[in-house]
Amino acid sequence: MQSDARGLFDPERIAVVGATERDGAIGRAIMENLERFSGEVVPINPKRDEVFGIQAYTDIESIPDPIDMAVVVVPPQIAVESARTLGENGVKNVVVITAGFGEMGEKGEALERELAEISDEYDLNLVGPNSIGIMSTSADMNASFGPMDALPGSLSFMSQSGAFITAVLDWANDKDIGFNDIVSLGNEAVLDETDFIEFWDEDEDTDVILGYLEGIDNGREFVDTAREVTEETPIVVVKSGRTEAGADAASSHTGTIAGSERAYEAGLEQAGVLRAENVEELFDFARVLAGQPTPEDDEVAVITNAGGPGVMATDTIGDTDLNMAELEDETVEELKEVLPEAANFYNPVDVLGDASVDRFDEAIDIVLQDENVSSAVVISCPTAVVDFEDLAETISSLQDKHGEPVVASLMGGERADVPEQTLREQGIPTYFDPARAVESLESLRTYRDITELEYESPTEFDVDRERAEEILRSVEDRDSDSLGVEAMDLLDAYGIPTPDSAIVNDPGAARDAAEDIEGDVVMKIVSPDILHKSDIGGVKVGVSEADVEETYEELLSVAHDHDANADILGVQVQEMVDMDSGTETIVGMNRDPQFGPMMLFGLGGIFVEVLEDTTVKVAPVSEREAENMIDEIESSPLLRGARGRDPVDESSVVESIQRLSQLVTDFPAISEIDVNPLLASPDGVTAADIRLTVDQDRL
Amino acid sequence: MQSDARGLFDPERIAVVGATERDGAIGRAIMENLERFSGEVVPINPKRDEVFGIQAYTDIESIPDPIDMAVVVVPPQIAVESARTLGENGVKNVVVITAGFGEMGEKGEALERELAEISDEYDLNLVGPNSIGIMSTSADMNASFGPMDALPGSLSFMSQSGAFITAVLDWANDKDIGFNDIVSLGNEAVLDETDFIEFWDEDEDTDVILGYLEGIDNGREFVDTAREVTEETPIVVVKSGRTEAGADAASSHTGTIAGSERAYEAGLEQAGVLRAENVEELFDFARVLAGQPTPEDDEVAVITNAGGPGVMATDTIGDTDLNMAELEDETVEELKEVLPEAANFYNPVDVLGDASVDRFDEAIDIVLQDENVSSAVVISCPTAVVDFEDLAETISSLQDKHGEPVVASLMGGERADVPEQTLREQGIPTYFDPARAVESLESLRTYRDITELEYESPTEFDVDRERAEEILRSVEDRDSDSLGVEAMDLLDAYGIPTPDSAIVNDPGAARDAAEDIEGDVVMKIVSPDILHKSDIGGVKVGVSEADVEETYEELLSVAHDHDANADILGVQVQEMVDMDSGTETIVGMNRDPQFGPMMLFGLGGIFVEVLEDTTVKVAPVSEREAENMIDEIESSPLLRGARGRDPVDESSVVESIQRLSQLVTDFPAISEIDVNPLLASPDGVTAADIRLTVDQDRL
Repeated sequence: MQSDARGLFDPERIAVVGATERDGAIGRAIMENLERFSGEVVPINPKRDEVFGIQAYTDIESIPDPIDMAVVVVPPQIAVESARTLGENGVKNVVVITAGFGEMGEKGEALERELAEISDEYDLNLVGPNSIGIMSTSADMNASFGPMDALPGSLSFMSQSGAFITAVLDWANDKDIGFNDIVSLGNEAVLDETDFIEFWDEDEDTDVILGYLEGIDNGREFVDTAREVTEETPIVVVKSGRTEAGADAASSHTGTIAGSERAYEAGLEQAGVLRAENVEELFDFARVLAGQPTPEDDEVAVITNAGGPGVMATDTIGDTDLNMAELEDETVEELKEVLPEAANFYNPVDVLGDASVDRFDEAIDIVLQDENVSSAVVISCPTAVVDFEDLAETISSLQDKHGEPVVASLMGGERADVPEQTLREQGIPTYFDPARAVESLESLRTYRDITELEYESPTEFDVDRERAEEILRSVEDRDSDSLGVEAMDLLDAYGIPTPDSAIVNDPGAARDAAEDIEGDVVMKIVSPDILHKSDIGGVKVGVSEADVEETYEELLSVAHDHDANADILGVQVQEMVDMDSGTETIVGMNRDPQFGPMMLFGLGGIFVEVLEDTTVKVAPVSEREAENMIDEIESSPLLRGARGRDPVDESSVVESIQRLSQLVTDFPAISEIDVNPLLASPDGVTAADIRLTVDQDRL
Repeated sequence: MQSDARGLFDPERIAVVGATERDGAIGRAIMENLERFSGEVVPINPKRDEVFGIQAYTDIESIPDPIDMAVVVVPPQIAVESARTLGENGVKNVVVITAGFGEMGEKGEALERELAEISDEYDLNLVGPNSIGIMSTSADMNASFGPMDALPGSLSFMSQSGAFITAVLDWANDKDIGFNDIVSLGNEAVLDETDFIEFWDEDEDTDVILGYLEGIDNGREFVDTAREVTEETPIVVVKSGRTEAGADAASSHTGTIAGSERAYEAGLEQAGVLRAENVEELFDFARVLAGQPTPEDDEVAVITNAGGPGVMATDTIGDTDLNMAELEDETVEELKEVLPEAANFYNPVDVLGDASVDRFDEAIDIVLQDENVSSAVVISCPTAVVDFEDLAETISSLQDKHGEPVVASLMGGERADVPEQTLREQGIPTYFDPARAVESLESLRTYRDITELEYESPTEFDVDRERAEEILRSVEDRDSDSLGVEAMDLLDAYGIPTPDSAIVNDPGAARDAAEDIEGDVVMKIVSPDILHKSDIGGVKVGVSEADVEETYEELLSVAHDHDANADILGVQVQEMVDMDSGTETIVGMNRDPQFGPMMLFGLGGIFVEVLEDTTVKVAPVSEREAENMIDEIESSPLLRGARGRDPVDESSVVESIQRLSQLVTDFPAISEIDVNPLLASPDGVTAADIRLTVDQDRL
């Protein structure tokens, strides 16, 4: 995004290219919505002198004063021309409402590319095409054709679905949820989600960034940018198209290829983005993040006038990473002084059904003084003696007094409406369901952890990049893009331990190689045409020096019997790796269309194939991320001494993950790679086998 | 519950024991709420001639007409006496509001036991004590001290938290959710959740039974009853105290010991009860179950005027066991005739943002005709051309015309309020969030599956019960309640295959035993005082006939070195079980305080210890339930030929689970049992080791 992008949301003068009074026309809806704009609106319409009583111009050139932002609603071909004219005349901010671009086949795609090129040429901040527009409440600007305005607030919201914005606004207005900026991203020919999170990060009026996303164009860029942004400004996202069926629907809707859900899950987590499951959760999180401080610790106190709802809140605390605070003895003593004998003085604190607001007041005040309490949930069922509005005021002033985050659950219907407003003024969310109150606290906790995380750069290991490139180039002379054991040296070049080994082309060389290796050897046929070597008898284990020559001949004849035309690169003679001396792991990578290289880690064999116990991360991974990959698999105790095993040298595993991550980052030509197994033992790791695919065009 | 329990909810004459006009008294609140009662209210108050202008009586005996139901609000001791007088005078239905019983220490517990005894003596249907009361909208009866009445409806609701009822009512009234009966269960001295599901099953005015439960008193009885009830009447339950923290809070709140969450999860599932996670879900499920038919199949069509929300609905369908319907060619052709070119004619069907209600009408009508479509979700974002109220009427009439279940998502704020009412009249739920609409459809699917399930009785195998009892009685002579390999015969008595084996007490006998067994043998020290035999070298594997005598001596000396005072029962000489010939499984049982015997199944070793991949069910289990236990573990592919293994004889595993289930059902004295490993191979199963604990008092 260009530096003067604030002009998108805070322009003095907006041109509407295609302004009209014609009934049902989008150009009319835009003009109507802009009637409330605090600046000047300049209609452009070659056939009219004025639109809605405002002087109209035939074209951009004829406008005497500088234009900060233009909204374009003319048909696709003309919209492209308009973008150029706007650029030529120094207009930097353009919102293209017009549809019929990338979402409508090849011709539209070509037009959309042209739009992008023009933007590039003239440094345009271009939103859309196929956008319903943008809004800014601070500028009283509704430059969209949506049917309603937004209320003012500190949330900025972007959406890849325009219709969804109208739905959210209708609903949010009803709930008094306000916004700062709203953007309908449309086809994202130029500006995308990454640009806006960057922009809103710098924007003082935005407290929380919200997104409805079906896809992320450049995953890695988004991750890197979001990491910086989330240090100051929380980002909460609903990512749609999570399931296979949903992703199919999203693709047919937007015409883009969806990245895998696993990639999104990993990428958003690495980016420090909070993920909401649905719209309610999106705004639950948004409101509490905008209104409450983050808690210093995870210890929650529950104060309630009814046991059951106290249990419900406690359950949800048990579901999250929050804990039930253990109250200090002093707190319990103080509670005993002010509460009736039948009350519960421990957490959850039950002030009983006959509690007045005063009793609530005393109990909350005492509990919030407790050093062990870092946040609180106040719950009230409707009773004859508690007035929700009074209680709301009490909760607000006690939150203000103590400063710790507080959320509420005033469990009623209409009677909770006004108190809800009162609490909102103090930034305190309230929900009928105690579970939702706790979940909103949990989002504060998650965000605190995000801000406390210091993102480290991936380690740069000293590697032999030239040698690696040479090995990868060896596919150029071959029919297949696949490499097998012949590429073990690739790992060696990047410092991942491999067994002693040589690839030989005659029995004598095989014996020489075996002599150089201590003990018996493993011999494998090396051929890009034979993928499942063991299945056809192409692997011989425990071959003694004496048998090496004979085995060589045997392997060649096995390979020949299997496929007479197979390209035989030779026979690998390899040091025996004692599989029982360690635990088989797998480290791999494949490329996601959006996020690029995704590292995978898991335990080998049944753990990956049957239990699918693996984890992925966007590469390059830092040391901590590599460590986390081990933590994230369920079978990790098997690496850590479970059931009397010797713990493996975890640091070697972590280093291998990072080194492989560096390899795939250095060489985009590696489209897929699997080191399987990477044998992990107390003494370190050894890569026992490898398989990779090379994209020759990217070499 | 006694046969005349309808008198609880449809009495002609209600006595209020403790009626008063005193401000703030519960007896006053009850009288006020009963003012709207359609029948006659009779106050009982020894000090007053009348209460609220109604003639009062000093005691039950003096009331001339028969009383159908009595509400008791007098202090605990007097409440107990009143219950007796009520019984003596033929009053069968009693609601005890009074608190201060089981929840308040030993004295209260004694009084509560007395209440139960009196109920037993006089066949009373007694609700409470410590209940806020009961309600029946069909009788205009609010016999509670809650602050509001319920709206009429077909949901009957029971709750173990009284305050929660007041919260739910306040909220439900605001949302126009109506009830038939409502019961605050209180301490459940007599009537409990099982009684009420049975009662409401017979009740024509109840379409759906709802419960807020923190515990279930007699789990097995609840499971058996609920199974019958759910065939006709859906039961939806929020079970609170799910997590450890929540269960602790529930215990301190109700004073009862909580069963484990795993037991509840298994029990409720076996009972055919739908479990809601929170209040919103409880009523989401309730409304759709009360309003819509169950779908014949799982194929859902989505009709939307916006792509994004269509993706959201599709995502949720992907999350559930529902599928996106594949529309017939004919349907697609018909849609092409009525929808614009840019529309999506496949599922999700996108009628586009400019769709009028007429276009919606045509599209929904065409889609619901499709034989592949068994239910539909209609989604609309707010636009200038669609009127939600018209759309609601269209959806209602089309649901009525086609008969398939339909749910809606009218995505707006206030504008959706009246249309929501319109849809509700046709029993169609609508939600802002498309995900919730889909989830409500999913609950219909789940309920359909429950009704289609034929519950089978557990198989009764021909077993040697006397022999088993004899083996169990052998603990009577011992210090310890634990049995080990010496109890292998227990399995034999119940038809679970065990290796050939003998327990011997001298080296010669050991050799004799080994001679009778084919091949080498395993020898184990047998002692209740040595639990981890292998750890101390108390197990010798692959002992040849020649070494048997020497090994015998060696084992005895190892045991003696370990613990000179250990009670040595002998040495077991056992046929070698080749562990590599099959897959280790574990079949076990422990007893839950509420649900009794819980069967456990999983794969042995790391699968149970590291991955905790096990499943539990309430015993006795039927054949299908035993089969399901295998399906439910994630590692089951390892029993079914994954990674080139030979599939094991699953039927033998299933039979062993059932036989062990029969054993633990026959002998409540077995408090815990583990058959670990039960080696499963293609040829059948063999129990290689056993450990159990016997409760001598229950022998």
